[in-house]
Amino acid sequence: MTFNVGIFGASGYTGGELVRLLARHPKARIAFVTSERHAGRPLSDVFPHLGGIPELICRPLTDFKATTECDVAFCALPHLTSMDAVPELLERGVRVVDLSADFRLRDEEQFRAWYGEEHRAPALLEEAVYGLPELGDRKAIAGARLIANPGCYPTSILLALGPLLREKAIETETLVIDSKSGVSGAGRSAAQGSLYAEVAEGFRAYKTTGHRHTPEIEQELTRLAGSEIRVRFSPHLLPQSRGILSTCYVRPRLPLTEKEWRDLLATHYRDEPFVQVLPVGQYPTTLQVRGSNRCVLSVALDGRTGWLVVLSVIDNLVKGASGQAVQNMNLLMGVEESAGLEQLPLYP
Amino acid sequence: MTFNVGIFGASGYTGGELVRLLARHPKARIAFVTSERHAGRPLSDVFPHLGGIPELICRPLTDFKATTECDVAFCALPHLTSMDAVPELLERGVRVVDLSADFRLRDEEQFRAWYGEEHRAPALLEEAVYGLPELGDRKAIAGARLIANPGCYPTSILLALGPLLREKAIETETLVIDSKSGVSGAGRSAAQGSLYAEVAEGFRAYKTTGHRHTPEIEQELTRLAGSEIRVRFSPHLLPQSRGILSTCYVRPRLPLTEKEWRDLLATHYRDEPFVQVLPVGQYPTTLQVRGSNRCVLSVALDGRTGWLVVLSVIDNLVKGASGQAVQNMNLLMGVEESAGLEQLPLYP
Amino acid sequence: MTFNVGIFGASGYTGGELVRLLARHPKARIAFVTSERHAGRPLSDVFPHLGGIPELICRPLTDFKATTECDVAFCALPHLTSMDAVPELLERGVRVVDLSADFRLRDEEQFRAWYGEEHRAPALLEEAVYGLPELGDRKAIAGARLIANPGCYPTSILLALGPLLREKAIETETLVIDSKSGVSGAGRSAAQGSLYAEVAEGFRAYKTTGHRHTPEIEQELTRLAGSEIRVRFSPHLLPQSRGILSTCYVRPRLPLTEKEWRDLLATHYRDEPFVQVLPVGQYPTTLQVRGSNRCVLSVALDGRTGWLVVLSVIDNLVKGASGQAVQNMNLLMGVEESAGLEQLPLYP
Amino acid sequence: MTFNVGIFGASGYTGGELVRLLARHPKARIAFVTSERHAGRPLSDVFPHLGGIPELICRPLTDFKATTECDVAFCALPHLTSMDAVPELLERGVRVVDLSADFRLRDEEQFRAWYGEEHRAPALLEEAVYGLPELGDRKAIAGARLIANPGCYPTSILLALGPLLREKAIETETLVIDSKSGVSGAGRSAAQGSLYAEVAEGFRAYKTTGHRHTPEIEQELTRLAGSEIRVRFSPHLLPQSRGILSTCYVRPRLPLTEKEWRDLLATHYRDEPFVQVLPVGQYPTTLQVRGSNRCVLSVALDGRTGWLVVLSVIDNLVKGASGQAVQNMNLLMGVEESAGLEQLPLYP
Repeated sequence: MTFNVGIFGASGYTGGELVRLLARHPKARIAFVTSERHAGRPLSDVFPHLGGIPELICRPLTDFKATTECDVAFCALPHLTSMDAVPELLERGVRVVDLSADFRLRDEEQFRAWYGEEHRAPALLEEAVYGLPELGDRKAIAGARLIANPGCYPTSILLALGPLLREKAIETETLVIDSKSGVSGAGRSAAQGSLYAEVAEGFRAYKTTGHRHTPEIEQELTRLAGSEIRVRFSPHLLPQSRGILSTCYVRPRLPLTEKEWRDLLATHYRDEPFVQVLPVGQYPTTLQVRGSNRCVLSVALDGRTGWLVVLSVIDNLVKGASGQAVQNMNLLMGVEESAGLEQLPLYP
Repeated sequence: MTFNVGIFGASGYTGGELVRLLARHPKARIAFVTSERHAGRPLSDVFPHLGGIPELICRPLTDFKATTECDVAFCALPHLTSMDAVPELLERGVRVVDLSADFRLRDEEQFRAWYGEEHRAPALLEEAVYGLPELGDRKAIAGARLIANPGCYPTSILLALGPLLREKAIETETLVIDSKSGVSGAGRSAAQGSLYAEVAEGFRAYKTTGHRHTPEIEQELTRLAGSEIRVRFSPHLLPQSRGILSTCYVRPRLPLTEKEWRDLLATHYRDEPFVQVLPVGQYPTTLQVRGSNRCVLSVALDGRTGWLVVLSVIDNLVKGASGQAVQNMNLLMGVEESAGLEQLPLYP
Repeated sequence: MTFNVGIFGASGYTGGELVRLLARHPKARIAFVTSERHAGRPLSDVFPHLGGIPELICRPLTDFKATTECDVAFCALPHLTSMDAVPELLERGVRVVDLSADFRLRDEEQFRAWYGEEHRAPALLEEAVYGLPELGDRKAIAGARLIANPGCYPTSILLALGPLLREKAIETETLVIDSKSGVSGAGRSAAQGSLYAEVAEGFRAYKTTGHRHTPEIEQELTRLAGSEIRVRFSPHLLPQSRGILSTCYVRPRLPLTEKEWRDLLATHYRDEPFVQVLPVGQYPTTLQVRGSNRCVLSVALDGRTGWLVVLSVIDNLVKGASGQAVQNMNLLMGVEESAGLEQLPLYP
Repeated sequence: MTFNVGIFGASGYTGGELVRLLARHPKARIAFVTSERHAGRPLSDVFPHLGGIPELICRPLTDFKATTECDVAFCALPHLTSMDAVPELLERGVRVVDLSADFRLRDEEQFRAWYGEEHRAPALLEEAVYGLPELGDRKAIAGARLIANPGCYPTSILLALGPLLREKAIETETLVIDSKSGVSGAGRSAAQGSLYAEVAEGFRAYKTTGHRHTPEIEQELTRLAGSEIRVRFSPHLLPQSRGILSTCYVRPRLPLTEKEWRDLLATHYRDEPFVQVLPVGQYPTTLQVRGSNRCVLSVALDGRTGWLVVLSVIDNLVKGASGQAVQNMNLLMGVEESAGLEQLPLYP
């Protein structure tokens, strides 16, 4: 009835968020957590908010024997580290949801170009299933050995533009995407740029031309559009902890009204529990999805210039990472897709 | 098996928080919500984060007939308004958890002195049961018609000092309490002093000598101590949305070590699911209780000056208001005390 | 040697900022301030940070006789109010720097279309000089009776794109501008949407298709380009008090390298004390201009998609409002253009 | 007419703040800055807001020859590092304002007890003059070779309580001080506890019983009171960048009214340009001193319990560090005490 999960790399924000969600999951049981840096210490020393749950003691990262205790392993290790751990996990027969970027790109060449290293498990690139259930193949996810959990920016953008490209409703040449993320997206490592006093009142752009989520966005949009897609993608850093808002500028191919654009999206996501499309004239705020696995979308059509704007918000740590990972795990284990993910957003 | 609840005054922050908690409660069903100002509109127009749950339409405040549809009514109306509504609700046979301050003071005279008005339902002052389960009488709460849900500051302070006074472990003459609250405590009404640009970087004290929670704190501490208690209570406004931290300065009567003070509290709350006492040397942060019904306590003993410091954090909207109200409702309806309140804190 | 200034509408954020700057100006002396709402009270009751300067008592708004006491009047009144006061001021022979939007558009028709009212002083629309010194005619500003002080978003955008359009270096058809502003831009009036608890963690878009700064941006870009310009302009609300960052997406017409684009801007602003162009690879943050009259620009060229991105930051209350107004006053009165504006930014 | 200053340790927040203030000082000229870590790089690489001022290149810390170029040296090095540099500087004949804690305690024994190391220049402990002009001896400061610039918490507390103790107006046994500081007080070093996502919504106490400012506060209060003083001092960390608010709880010895307590302080600071005492009933906010060298005080008398509360706000980086250092330099160099410090606070 219940099954066991292990979390590799539990001391980062996505790891902590996995514990938060899984500790209250109706079917999953956290069998173990690992943290190289905090091995031997209780996880509640690392995350004070986890102080009330049954004691989890961090194991060393490389304690792969632990996999015998779990049915599914979450890999929340840093990029370029995960690709060394995942093959080991798969060999031991455990199914893996990988939250790093290591198995998201299908093309080894692209990986080398954007990450500056050879991939050390290239055979798995093809096997890995990209885990965005709303736009992917749920059967493929359910049957996968290895799920590549999507990036936070890509999730917010694919959910906004995927249906429009699939329907060939917009031009494919002119995609401008301006995204803004809360600072938890930069992780929990101590870095001057993430200090409170540097971030507060200090909105800024970063990696304007070379963010590594770019090829992931393009790969998936290309798949959905059925033709080669390139995007102008600019990430920015918000003075807030959680949340991504992506403002997507596209050129319509179909002559629809604002209401029809809205309905096109709403119809597409009609049966999706985690995607909500706002009525015309309403815009989403990151606060309305905080702590939840939701994505909220809205559209605005600019009659004067002909641009269509699609707005998308998610919580980068939930639908953009750990919540989506749990959603994928649910598909993998054949339980209700929204199990453990029904929590409402925290507002304010 | 399940029962019905109604929420009077759903458009404020405590109202919205009641909906968040009750919408996922295993036994309670929200039968209706009222909001005078937003009557006729869906609650999701008022609170965008409630957009995903089955549509609730705001009824007018005075739609007391609605009470026939519910077993328990939550009254989240403003102070001095609630005392007009509650008698009406009780007459119609519904049990009430009142989140205002109107029924917290037992002494009519005190009410007049601190609120500047005659109480309009004085007979109920005696009947109302003060709903702080960890320090009160759970049987009395379970049997009450009317529960006065404690204030946010009092909750944080009583949980910190109650056991020490009950055990006569500290002096009763020298209680200095310095509390700091997130700005959601000021409510959702538009007020210049609550604007983002006035609050950010603008930590300040307010009502340093006349905050209305003072008599409530004193009444309950007096009850626990068994002797007249007066407190020096200073509230402050934090540049954050949620959370209260109270720093309580007291003089020991018993010659205990720091560890023994810690253990005294820990022993007292041993079986309480919502109160956690930190090990010596650790201090709580408001972030570690955000969104949850927890209170986290710690102690520090200053050997140099002889003062004992007790630190206490809660989320003012949960354990300080709506979460505690649900806890009281659980007792009232004979369900598991922590039902619907098991959510872990949101960190970060 | 010194001259006198009056401030009409001193109780808003731009009014307070004018006082901050002018109280330390080497040549200007604040003769009086007005505030209808606070008439008769010291300005330090309204703005606690002004408590240390010689006492200014708010006069009623309509005390136009006051103009006899000043050489220059700043009009920091709300939009649609200023157009009633300005003619009165001019008639009395005082020169006016108007910080509202009422005299920024030259076309009466446009004004009606975007502001929904007839202009009540249309004759002045033509006379008013648009006060953006870096891209305008400093002689015209110096000789003006009425200066229309630019809007905050337009200032950030015009400084970024003006030189590129003037040089015909970029396409005029495809201008996408994604701007983000601190919440002080919404003013100091109590509004639920500006509350701390609604803004914090709540980044959002607003007025995505109809913001009133749009025609002002287009009018000035059209003037600079020498051909009709339309822009896709999307404003967003940041969880911070001050600062605007505009991310401008344009298509190059000239085949320049990233370094050449950077140098084109740097050369254009070579002699400007308030505009700084960053080296290639650096991006601005709103924190680095806070409290100062600076604009910091940078460029990024995306070789993959052909888009050029121009980033621009200002402090919306200084270069975006009151600082620029003082800069215009300096030109008007023939003093050093940077007088009273040399303060360095406050970081952090 | 003008004189030269050097800044040792310019890459921290207090160093950056010294540059901000001194770059606009009418008499001082920054001759050089040092930063071990950034030696050879322009200071504007380290602090983007300093990009507009004439280029300063960081020299290595140990470039003590530089002292020949300056009349006054500011030492903004970390605690326990400064005591190695200062003797070297003094030997070379330069006068020093030291912003570290190394020369604030007069008692070598105390230093060892609180800092855990032997003092390596104990002879200077007696010579150093504690630089709090409002409560010290301005002649002594003016004549000093070495000024120990006060700590941030001590400055806020001494200005609040100093006059009351000097007048023997309050009890000396029962001093409870609850202080709250913005996170810039923790410096600019990357540390997990100072990350945005850990600080936002995460108000907390720290070092409740052993903060190293305690002996400094006690030493100076003892001097002012003329009798041994011990304080119960609790620091807390605010989710904001700048500002300290200290809430001081004391027991009156004199039977004064609230107004008389207020006037006692106001009279004491009558001629002080940087200290403001609010009217009865008003409370200060950290926002009203941000970026300025001011301290704002107010009092509240609790008739019910007999406690007197004194509230004090400063900007920890200005009056609590670099502004006060400039004030001391002014005294040292015989220029106007407020030279370069007349900037008004930035609000909001």
